[in-house]
Amino acid sequence: MGSNDAADLVLALDLGGTNMRVAVVSSGGDILARSETATPYDAGAEELAILVAALCRQAASDAGNVSPIGLGAAIPATFRPDGTVGKLPNLPRLSGSDIKGLLARETGLRVELMNDATAAAAGEHWLGAAAGAENAIMITLGTGVGGGIILGGKVHFGADGTAGEIGHLCVEPEGHQCGCGSRGCLEQYASGTAVVRQARESGLIVSTAKDVYDLADRGDLAAGRLFLEMGRYLGIAIGGLLNVLDPDVVVIGGGVAAAWGRFYPAMRAEATARAFPEPAERAKIVRASLGDDPGVLGAAKITFERIAEGRL
Amino acid sequence: MGSNDAADLVLALDLGGTNMRVAVVSSGGDILARSETATPYDAGAEELAILVAALCRQAASDAGNVSPIGLGAAIPATFRPDGTVGKLPNLPRLSGSDIKGLLARETGLRVELMNDATAAAAGEHWLGAAAGAENAIMITLGTGVGGGIILGGKVHFGADGTAGEIGHLCVEPEGHQCGCGSRGCLEQYASGTAVVRQARESGLIVSTAKDVYDLADRGDLAAGRLFLEMGRYLGIAIGGLLNVLDPDVVVIGGGVAAAWGRFYPAMRAEATARAFPEPAERAKIVRASLGDDPGVLGAAKITFERIAEGRL
Repeated sequence: MGSNDAADLVLALDLGGTNMRVAVVSSGGDILARSETATPYDAGAEELAILVAALCRQAASDAGNVSPIGLGAAIPATFRPDGTVGKLPNLPRLSGSDIKGLLARETGLRVELMNDATAAAAGEHWLGAAAGAENAIMITLGTGVGGGIILGGKVHFGADGTAGEIGHLCVEPEGHQCGCGSRGCLEQYASGTAVVRQARESGLIVSTAKDVYDLADRGDLAAGRLFLEMGRYLGIAIGGLLNVLDPDVVVIGGGVAAAWGRFYPAMRAEATARAFPEPAERAKIVRASLGDDPGVLGAAKITFERIAEGRL
Repeated sequence: MGSNDAADLVLALDLGGTNMRVAVVSSGGDILARSETATPYDAGAEELAILVAALCRQAASDAGNVSPIGLGAAIPATFRPDGTVGKLPNLPRLSGSDIKGLLARETGLRVELMNDATAAAAGEHWLGAAAGAENAIMITLGTGVGGGIILGGKVHFGADGTAGEIGHLCVEPEGHQCGCGSRGCLEQYASGTAVVRQARESGLIVSTAKDVYDLADRGDLAAGRLFLEMGRYLGIAIGGLLNVLDPDVVVIGGGVAAAWGRFYPAMRAEATARAFPEPAERAKIVRASLGDDPGVLGAAKITFERIAEGRL
């Protein structure tokens, strides 16, 4: 990897609800080094920025004392018109903070801030399951349900950088109350949190979505049914998105996508039944292919582009 | 208008379920002449093409014997990957036909075929209520519910030219059967047809959405409630679209938008309650401003662009 100039390297942060990952990424998409730690749920913005800066120094050192030219920070947030962060249901103390300014101060780098699911979409479009697609939708099934959209070969950020919140499409108008304030959002039926909640409502004793999956694998019908229901709701949302956006591919990632074989048939059938025949036949619905890396890779890609455009 | 060169003129067709309109449009957006007739529901593709060609000759003659350089044809259809038309619920005999080839043969012009609601979005974005918007959504409330999307300042056609079918977003998973094969599509709650159907289900004796509107105006509570319910469902769909696309503006047009004052409050309240605060605060939701003309103007705009790009 010695052929990478410092000018060809950025740091990338993927700040998840459970873990925070930092990587040194080349402009060709190589990951030269990584550092990772558990996300401190209760941390304030300043404490978090100091922690990220330490992870960045560690990764840059591990990559061979390189000097990356910027930091792309993917965070589970929406953004306000003034650039401060809006809602972060999974990191509540960051809400309203100037996390971008703090990260720049602590790392000494130019910082590009973006939504984590949007970064994941950019990553899968760069090097993963959506590579080469003109129009793609990425849905991330994790603690929540995130989304990102590629249109005309480019990430669609929207007017406020909030676009792609597919987890907050309504799939059941009078359904379960959502943390966003609405009801019946896809997130309430297809996230890991939702799977656990519904399993408990069915009387199952579980603490993670993986527990529910394991029960289904051991033949528990109630657990199996939950994934069919999750697939059905995903299919309702995807069917609508096929009609509205007519994409080439829908990519499903995140930890809960591990249950693919359990929810895919119901999801595909429902999406096909709901969508017009042309987009339903054309659009592929596939699993993400970059494992834990789409977030850092996408954050790096977006940061390289911003620097090349002179906008960072 | 004598200053328009023939090279600056196109013909545009807006083929609606009720009326078909043709206009001669300049590259500056002036309408030089129009011709219009009732749409023959039972016509085959060849018969329809002959009728369109006659309207085109009439309009070109009325505009001063001009020679337009192309025809932009906006039709209520989806498209197949091979360019033939897919579904046309309101003009069933056209399904699967080579309407583009027939129009070219009968008019002797290059023909650009597009979805009618997509054309309306392009028209409102060119000269109407979405002018200047980077990201805009247009919803057309007519016999059905159509939609068109502007992203990054450009019309989003999607992989098959089918994008923008907002009328077929699901707003009630087990709701009313839709002609598209799905259930609970927005079209089943917010189109003129839906308003009439629901009014009759409520025991009202009506034949058009206008009748329902007039009843509401005379104080009929059941009729008034139908528009509140229509607004609520529109708000559910719009709230989801705000979260997914984060647009600057949502434009509502079509004949049923005449009931604006009756459905706007419920629609706005529901969309705001459903969407994240940033896009909900930023996005305007406004009425279309081009009357009956967004379709022909947008068809013309798209045709001028295709010719300029050398793609027509």
